[in-house]
Amino acid sequence: MQGKLRAAIVGSTGYGGVELIRLLQNHPDVEITSVISSSSSGEPIEAGFPHLTGLFAQPLDGVDPAEIAGKADVVFTATPSGVSGKLVPQLLEAGLKVIDLSGDFRLKDRAEYEQWYRHPAPPPAYLEEAVYGLCEVYGEHAAGARFISNPGCYPTATLLGLLPALEAGWIQPESIIIDAKSGVSGSGRGASLGVHFAEVNENFKAYKVNKHQHIPEIEQVLTEAAGKPVTVTFTTHLVPMTRGIMSTMYAGMNGQHSESEFVELYRNYYAGRPFVRVRSEGVLPATKEVSGSNYCDIGFAADPRTGRVTIVSVIDNVVKGAAGQAIQNLNLMMGWEETRGLGFTPVYP
Amino acid sequence: MQGKLRAAIVGSTGYGGVELIRLLQNHPDVEITSVISSSSSGEPIEAGFPHLTGLFAQPLDGVDPAEIAGKADVVFTATPSGVSGKLVPQLLEAGLKVIDLSGDFRLKDRAEYEQWYRHPAPPPAYLEEAVYGLCEVYGEHAAGARFISNPGCYPTATLLGLLPALEAGWIQPESIIIDAKSGVSGSGRGASLGVHFAEVNENFKAYKVNKHQHIPEIEQVLTEAAGKPVTVTFTTHLVPMTRGIMSTMYAGMNGQHSESEFVELYRNYYAGRPFVRVRSEGVLPATKEVSGSNYCDIGFAADPRTGRVTIVSVIDNVVKGAAGQAIQNLNLMMGWEETRGLGFTPVYP
Amino acid sequence: MQGKLRAAIVGSTGYGGVELIRLLQNHPDVEITSVISSSSSGEPIEAGFPHLTGLFAQPLDGVDPAEIAGKADVVFTATPSGVSGKLVPQLLEAGLKVIDLSGDFRLKDRAEYEQWYRHPAPPPAYLEEAVYGLCEVYGEHAAGARFISNPGCYPTATLLGLLPALEAGWIQPESIIIDAKSGVSGSGRGASLGVHFAEVNENFKAYKVNKHQHIPEIEQVLTEAAGKPVTVTFTTHLVPMTRGIMSTMYAGMNGQHSESEFVELYRNYYAGRPFVRVRSEGVLPATKEVSGSNYCDIGFAADPRTGRVTIVSVIDNVVKGAAGQAIQNLNLMMGWEETRGLGFTPVYP
Amino acid sequence: MQGKLRAAIVGSTGYGGVELIRLLQNHPDVEITSVISSSSSGEPIEAGFPHLTGLFAQPLDGVDPAEIAGKADVVFTATPSGVSGKLVPQLLEAGLKVIDLSGDFRLKDRAEYEQWYRHPAPPPAYLEEAVYGLCEVYGEHAAGARFISNPGCYPTATLLGLLPALEAGWIQPESIIIDAKSGVSGSGRGASLGVHFAEVNENFKAYKVNKHQHIPEIEQVLTEAAGKPVTVTFTTHLVPMTRGIMSTMYAGMNGQHSESEFVELYRNYYAGRPFVRVRSEGVLPATKEVSGSNYCDIGFAADPRTGRVTIVSVIDNVVKGAAGQAIQNLNLMMGWEETRGLGFTPVYP
Repeated sequence: MQGKLRAAIVGSTGYGGVELIRLLQNHPDVEITSVISSSSSGEPIEAGFPHLTGLFAQPLDGVDPAEIAGKADVVFTATPSGVSGKLVPQLLEAGLKVIDLSGDFRLKDRAEYEQWYRHPAPPPAYLEEAVYGLCEVYGEHAAGARFISNPGCYPTATLLGLLPALEAGWIQPESIIIDAKSGVSGSGRGASLGVHFAEVNENFKAYKVNKHQHIPEIEQVLTEAAGKPVTVTFTTHLVPMTRGIMSTMYAGMNGQHSESEFVELYRNYYAGRPFVRVRSEGVLPATKEVSGSNYCDIGFAADPRTGRVTIVSVIDNVVKGAAGQAIQNLNLMMGWEETRGLGFTPVYP
Repeated sequence: MQGKLRAAIVGSTGYGGVELIRLLQNHPDVEITSVISSSSSGEPIEAGFPHLTGLFAQPLDGVDPAEIAGKADVVFTATPSGVSGKLVPQLLEAGLKVIDLSGDFRLKDRAEYEQWYRHPAPPPAYLEEAVYGLCEVYGEHAAGARFISNPGCYPTATLLGLLPALEAGWIQPESIIIDAKSGVSGSGRGASLGVHFAEVNENFKAYKVNKHQHIPEIEQVLTEAAGKPVTVTFTTHLVPMTRGIMSTMYAGMNGQHSESEFVELYRNYYAGRPFVRVRSEGVLPATKEVSGSNYCDIGFAADPRTGRVTIVSVIDNVVKGAAGQAIQNLNLMMGWEETRGLGFTPVYP
Repeated sequence: MQGKLRAAIVGSTGYGGVELIRLLQNHPDVEITSVISSSSSGEPIEAGFPHLTGLFAQPLDGVDPAEIAGKADVVFTATPSGVSGKLVPQLLEAGLKVIDLSGDFRLKDRAEYEQWYRHPAPPPAYLEEAVYGLCEVYGEHAAGARFISNPGCYPTATLLGLLPALEAGWIQPESIIIDAKSGVSGSGRGASLGVHFAEVNENFKAYKVNKHQHIPEIEQVLTEAAGKPVTVTFTTHLVPMTRGIMSTMYAGMNGQHSESEFVELYRNYYAGRPFVRVRSEGVLPATKEVSGSNYCDIGFAADPRTGRVTIVSVIDNVVKGAAGQAIQNLNLMMGWEETRGLGFTPVYP
Repeated sequence: MQGKLRAAIVGSTGYGGVELIRLLQNHPDVEITSVISSSSSGEPIEAGFPHLTGLFAQPLDGVDPAEIAGKADVVFTATPSGVSGKLVPQLLEAGLKVIDLSGDFRLKDRAEYEQWYRHPAPPPAYLEEAVYGLCEVYGEHAAGARFISNPGCYPTATLLGLLPALEAGWIQPESIIIDAKSGVSGSGRGASLGVHFAEVNENFKAYKVNKHQHIPEIEQVLTEAAGKPVTVTFTTHLVPMTRGIMSTMYAGMNGQHSESEFVELYRNYYAGRPFVRVRSEGVLPATKEVSGSNYCDIGFAADPRTGRVTIVSVIDNVVKGAAGQAIQNLNLMMGWEETRGLGFTPVYP
């Protein structure tokens, strides 16, 4: 074990945290030295997650930055928004590297944060320092950083699907409409009527239309890429499945571009980026084709009748949309190969 | 039994046909006198559909227009496209009333039919005669008709969601984008890899993007309503559930209209139409809330940030999208109350 | 409306209560005059159950026996165990007829009740009066009764599957093993981790093995039928579906009996009982084949190799296992035809 | 790559074959040198399995023993029963090691094979040579073998759950009843009405009761362990999920044994066997807790009331029930550590 990077996971009993455990257990250069939960401290993690029976002997630790700093080199904070905002500065000051999976450090504009998240924004210095960890786009900023803000699940699928076309000027920024769909694990592990099996199964519903807190995150990145303010229409739907996100995106094209041109544009953009798989002309990806893996798969349908392109982007929300991308960020931060510990094949069927 | 209208169902062993049996068994003014299947003639229907055990003693008949005319007053043809086009004229000439559930008589333009359906269009006289049975919009044409072409499932949900706003001039026809989602029963009962449980479950996929044969049907009606050609972007997705369709529709608004104004507009438009339920401001319908019933529920999200409205419309694809609306059309045709035999509550959960 | 029986439903916001609403709305001789909820009194029921939008205008009433007695002739109590035990005596004393869907009045032995349910048993007089409403077996006791205790979901499927063979002496009472499986609606509408979609979906689990409170209910009836104490092995499992129960039952045969003999025995036993459908030799029922309906379907596999018979019995737990059988009991109580308001076909697919 | 064992997979386009690809891609000592399909030879495998996009460049080979022998050291035959019986002898004679995932070499008695499988049994010499690869029980026979017959999915879960108690004499062999449940992937990838999503979803059904071809496989092993003929009652059910098997097993106990005694007995029996996890007293495993992994988890409920024990055993049918156990057998065959390439954590949720 000697020589491995020591990692702690705060929020180990949520779906993001427990997926970090699954993935880090297979990472050749990382050792999990502390799993932390404010609510279940002292218990063995297998009491709440029997799939970990026999795999993880340590009891859950409580949340104590000094204690964490004594045990770990890097901390993943898979904590609710509002909690990370307070905890992360303490962890950084204690000398730890931090990869935060909450939404607390993604928006650079504090007023916007407070409008969408409804609690006070973290201190400006930390917002400024936080590297927005959309690996395939901002990966070079992660190298050597001590603090990364891991992107949201919807923004990951959406931005990877839009940025090449937007930066190339092929689509009209003001025309972008995003129809997104997510599996239920995206809602977290908390019990509520909204995630009751009998309410979700055999059902399909829209929620938080135009009100989702991932909207400003998406717009912030698109605005920077377009060089002018971009406002999007963004709808989220709940799919009766556990894992997976699809963003179906619509935009008016500047000029006409064929599907094969889109394929070429995107393959060039993502050249050398193993976790984005641009599908061939006429082939659209389905969520199951990336399930359990860190891939983001993208396909296109360009329609000369309407002058619009439809872009379909899929990820596993728990992996590329959370724990997997966090580890990808760790790899970039440490100067390791991007795929280190993440080179597994999707689980199919 | 005397005095009841005698009904035959061609294509009784598909999901549309078997749902017609379920619904007509509870219709007080109709008696099913023949269930017909080209493939299973002679067998009892409960051999293939054990849920009908003990409920339906007649064996399946073969497809013989003269024989049908001897047994029935009205025929529901739940036959594949291409089959109805040939069969329906024979049934009409044999003196029967016909309600056709296929797509064969929905497009008035034969060239368009042949482009999207890839086989020869039915004779012009029948296309002209066919009443397009979108009950809440064209219901008055059904009264006294002898031949009704029942709308497609996607067009039903989509058109009921768009027409009031389009006719009022509140939305820009050229801006319409339809992101539709359907349960698997919409694919029919034929076995294929695409409907294999292990391929569909825990999966979400797009299919036939910009290529679905319901596109010209939707555009035909929207074009008539707008008074000028309307071309839409239309995407269909497969949801891991059995029943239900949601159309999430996007359009730029002419001027600003609030959600409550949309609610009022639609409630006025559908006044006296019991099967469309316009939801209150801020409430969007989910597919399960209409499951097993003939309702179409509609809700709105108007976004002043983008100047777009998002309209959500849901139906049960097998009921309002097929068998239920066919019976609603029969009621209108016969001058009966629209809800006759259809007044059941959605099945929940 | 005049002349209809006036019904009140206590516990209208649980799955049993809301199914009673669905079914009673289609009952020709009953009018729902009060829907009652201790927790949501004053609200419209469609706030929590949007599928009832426009169908049910009355706001929810609170629980007040005197008020109920002023509005209703019969009360369905779909209340949790422990609550019914206290409420039902008050309702009876107020002059109401009562059909109780809880487990509080099913066990005749108070000590046994207190052992399995863990709270004080109701007063002996009411336990004695309560007619155990397994319609196909004890239906004649329901006629004219004022108080019926509706059987549990598992006992209904299980007892209808076992009693004919047990009473005929074809199976050995001491050998009975019941492997039961239920959809998630059986757990009720309360939110908990155990019914979280992401925990139940793609999962199959056993629960309460040998500890389920339906065990003494099953044994009480089997003991009476066998004329000597019967103790069963009873396992319950949670199936990732919403509705449906299957009991797979195993017993050693006294002598050898073929499947066709079982079919004949059961068809004779249930002759004139429309809601039990005994399947033909070699055909086993599936839960979906009774979904949404009041049927109990039963099939057999007799194995000469082992001398055991396997009996498979399925119901919709919310209908025949709760609301549907309660209405069937009302019909028997009132001397109406057993199928009154219940003659609908299963929903398939 | 040099020095790695070269593996070929025949039947690469079934669920077992494609899971072998997923798992072997992560095996440090194995290189896949040929993926073989009789039906899709020449095509890239990603055409039929898009989740492998970019991961597997080789086109599919045809079935040619000589060609396979030139490319590989070991062959996994994930072929239908009847095909393996003919192919495996050719592969062995060509000098290859073989691990066969079909049922063709599991039964030692040719007459029994022909009775249950309905085609001619393979030659006796090969039946005799085949090592029955239930790793935790017969692992020592695999070391150095050239031919292993991989156990069936149901027998794996069932036998691992029964053998320790049977060998200890704690349960009565003649009393064993096995109520098994499987996800749909166990039916293979072929399209049929029986695996149509709309027929399986929201459904639970029994099939092949007392007629499943895994019955003689289970009885052969139990008979050997008991030292006398054992005949079991065995029921299989289809669960609306993709992966997972649960065997719920019932047996009369010889004497009384507590749950904690069972736990201790089984932990001793499986000591040093990392893939069997015996759960603590009072804790029963669920299928999702082993999903995507090679674990078999086992729990107990002993009932002093009836003198019976209920044993619950779960596996992922595609991993421990097929591809994973096949690789475990390869590890044992080659003298590698049993967990080599299989040390991944279950995917949860």
